[in-house]
Amino acid sequence: MKPFNQMNKEELQSLKLELEEKFAKVQAQNLHLDMSRGKPAKAQLDLANGMMDVLGSDSDMVCEDGVDCRNYGVLDGIAEAKKLLADMSEVDVDEVIIYGNSSLNVMFDTVSRCMTHGVLGGTPWCKLDKVKFLCPVPGYDRHFGITEYFGIEMINIPMLPTGPDMDMVEKLVAEDASIKGIWCVPKYSNPQGITYSDETVRRFAHLKPAAKDFRIFWDNAYSIHHLYDDDQDFLLEILDECEKAGNPDLVYKFISTSKVSFPGSGVAAVATSKNNMADFKRHMKFQTIGHDKLNQLRHARFFKDMDGMHEHMRKHADILRPKFEAVLEVLEKELGGLEIGSWIKPKGGYFISFDALEGCAKKIVAKAKEAGVVMTGAGATFPYGKDPKDSNIRIAPSFPTPEELAAAADIFVLSVKLVSIDKLLEQ
Amino acid sequence: MKPFNQMNKEELQSLKLELEEKFAKVQAQNLHLDMSRGKPAKAQLDLANGMMDVLGSDSDMVCEDGVDCRNYGVLDGIAEAKKLLADMSEVDVDEVIIYGNSSLNVMFDTVSRCMTHGVLGGTPWCKLDKVKFLCPVPGYDRHFGITEYFGIEMINIPMLPTGPDMDMVEKLVAEDASIKGIWCVPKYSNPQGITYSDETVRRFAHLKPAAKDFRIFWDNAYSIHHLYDDDQDFLLEILDECEKAGNPDLVYKFISTSKVSFPGSGVAAVATSKNNMADFKRHMKFQTIGHDKLNQLRHARFFKDMDGMHEHMRKHADILRPKFEAVLEVLEKELGGLEIGSWIKPKGGYFISFDALEGCAKKIVAKAKEAGVVMTGAGATFPYGKDPKDSNIRIAPSFPTPEELAAAADIFVLSVKLVSIDKLLEQ
Repeated sequence: MKPFNQMNKEELQSLKLELEEKFAKVQAQNLHLDMSRGKPAKAQLDLANGMMDVLGSDSDMVCEDGVDCRNYGVLDGIAEAKKLLADMSEVDVDEVIIYGNSSLNVMFDTVSRCMTHGVLGGTPWCKLDKVKFLCPVPGYDRHFGITEYFGIEMINIPMLPTGPDMDMVEKLVAEDASIKGIWCVPKYSNPQGITYSDETVRRFAHLKPAAKDFRIFWDNAYSIHHLYDDDQDFLLEILDECEKAGNPDLVYKFISTSKVSFPGSGVAAVATSKNNMADFKRHMKFQTIGHDKLNQLRHARFFKDMDGMHEHMRKHADILRPKFEAVLEVLEKELGGLEIGSWIKPKGGYFISFDALEGCAKKIVAKAKEAGVVMTGAGATFPYGKDPKDSNIRIAPSFPTPEELAAAADIFVLSVKLVSIDKLLEQ
Repeated sequence: MKPFNQMNKEELQSLKLELEEKFAKVQAQNLHLDMSRGKPAKAQLDLANGMMDVLGSDSDMVCEDGVDCRNYGVLDGIAEAKKLLADMSEVDVDEVIIYGNSSLNVMFDTVSRCMTHGVLGGTPWCKLDKVKFLCPVPGYDRHFGITEYFGIEMINIPMLPTGPDMDMVEKLVAEDASIKGIWCVPKYSNPQGITYSDETVRRFAHLKPAAKDFRIFWDNAYSIHHLYDDDQDFLLEILDECEKAGNPDLVYKFISTSKVSFPGSGVAAVATSKNNMADFKRHMKFQTIGHDKLNQLRHARFFKDMDGMHEHMRKHADILRPKFEAVLEVLEKELGGLEIGSWIKPKGGYFISFDALEGCAKKIVAKAKEAGVVMTGAGATFPYGKDPKDSNIRIAPSFPTPEELAAAADIFVLSVKLVSIDKLLEQ
């Protein structure tokens, strides 16, 4: 089929009739398919069921250094969990703090702490007239939700194939002291699956922000979430680069096992400089006596070490890979060459990002919904839920079964075609 | 023995020599005993070990309403956990929100939310020149730690046998709009073990604070933590009283299973009005996708219902009761009638509160430490760590074994006697 923009009105009209007939048929099937959230599928959760057998009533629940994990104490995590999550974060054991069940919660608390207590003794952000964050777009809706909730003004930064537009980032942070942070998902980014290039990471490490309390919120959510064993992205370790650049305190790095073990019942961690760790811990010691050490112990004993965790992630990949490939195949086969949308083939992470013709994203999501397919709301990948081009759609292929996914992808491409034809006919 | 204040100098001097000799002997034993924190003992933790068997790799981890507890979702708690913790809180299921592993964390987050977002749409407290909290004393050091960390000014309110001095509370909240809250441990209070009288609870419910955003932080930490089956304190349910008084939004009630199952691996909850719940949830939905549902399920299936929980608490009481009684026996036997200290015999909770002669608490704690007994730091039970009379000492008898406790109590009373003699000799 030739590109849609090379078709004349009659061709588009006749194609529309044909596609509408197809659409009516799928609609009649009354499907209920969900490609909206990056949730692991049941089969992935089953992989970690063995974790429920690690601790039993007759287990020794004392950890390496003699702490009874059942009792109070240990603010920043048991030794075994620190080792495992430091390795996962590619940092030293003394550069990591273990948290509760969710890194999102830690990011929220971190912004909240900056608001009420500032950074390293600086002015609390709530005392400032204006606080701004840079937001690479498209990005993760829950990041933008946190900054919006705290009244922080968000500035869109375009994503390039190498990561955020660093020319723009460097310029803005250097000239505006009210810019206090940037949200980054540096590896297999949400939603595009882009991994920041070495140059991008180094430019981040060398930033010269006007605000001394500027911090990079480095959400390494998909650090080991590869789809292919032999074709993986590599990300430079940012703390190390910051140290080398003489900017040791610039980054807060967040990780969790949410999509490794169980979402909601995993273990989260922060890796950062000694100075920043003191800031985190000063807050923590008033906030809690300690996080769930039994769950930390459960994780450490189940995975044993990074080899165990990588082995486990390969099993996740075996389940996820065919799903990603199924969607990508449908996109390629049905939309390839039509010039009504573009997408990136990711090597890891949880999403496929689709860019429709301008002004079409909302209509495509609505159209798919008419046939029972729930997508992430159009605009969700942008601050304030506003995609200036109304173009980006996040596809989350992890949760449905392969069969459901095939059906959902068919409905999606049909919706893209129909909405694109309408746009072209209007012109 | 006659009261110390009726002894003459010679009598005191000679007693001092005798006691110093005794003290030197215990000191030579090089003991290491800890009565500093309200930590359950190993035997108490063992009681809940069966909870580790509740979920196994072949368990159905789907809860009543079909939610897979292993995956993302469910912001405010699974149905089973809501039922259990609502019953524990003596409120309806729709008046409770389930949180993570610690009620301290929820209290901290609640103060933090009030600072950044205010109460029910009111001015964020961080935008106000002055925020004050009332602090019944002696009280819980971690409460005071939270308010101090957020720069909230704390005002001491004396505890009476019926609870906080309500004349003072009523007067202060009515005339000072900068008073935004009060910390309460209404049942088996920390450290005195006092349960608020019905009149006190009703007066709380009828408060007429000048500040619309004044809230009672009702930390019902020891609601079911009785020492005696046949001699228990009863506490009026405050939400109900507030509703009746036309003050439905006045209270935030916090509970947790920290000293029921495992400290640090329990489940926390808040019970409050519908309006307040909306405030809590609005915040929560940006802070987390959900708390640890597997741990919620584990608790619900292990305890089954309140009967199960009460039955479990009886086993805790069987372990704790002899420890409390051992300490109280030593106090009575060694200090009774000497008029150098007073204490309350609690019917539940985790502490015995001891009031020494004025100006003696710090010296007594230091003296006991010389012989290897670690007590809670004197002053810790007061805001800013400052006991104006330097009199109150918190005794935590739960963690040591009965044998250790007997030795520790002996050292404690010896320390009280020696320090008191010094004070009397100085006069």
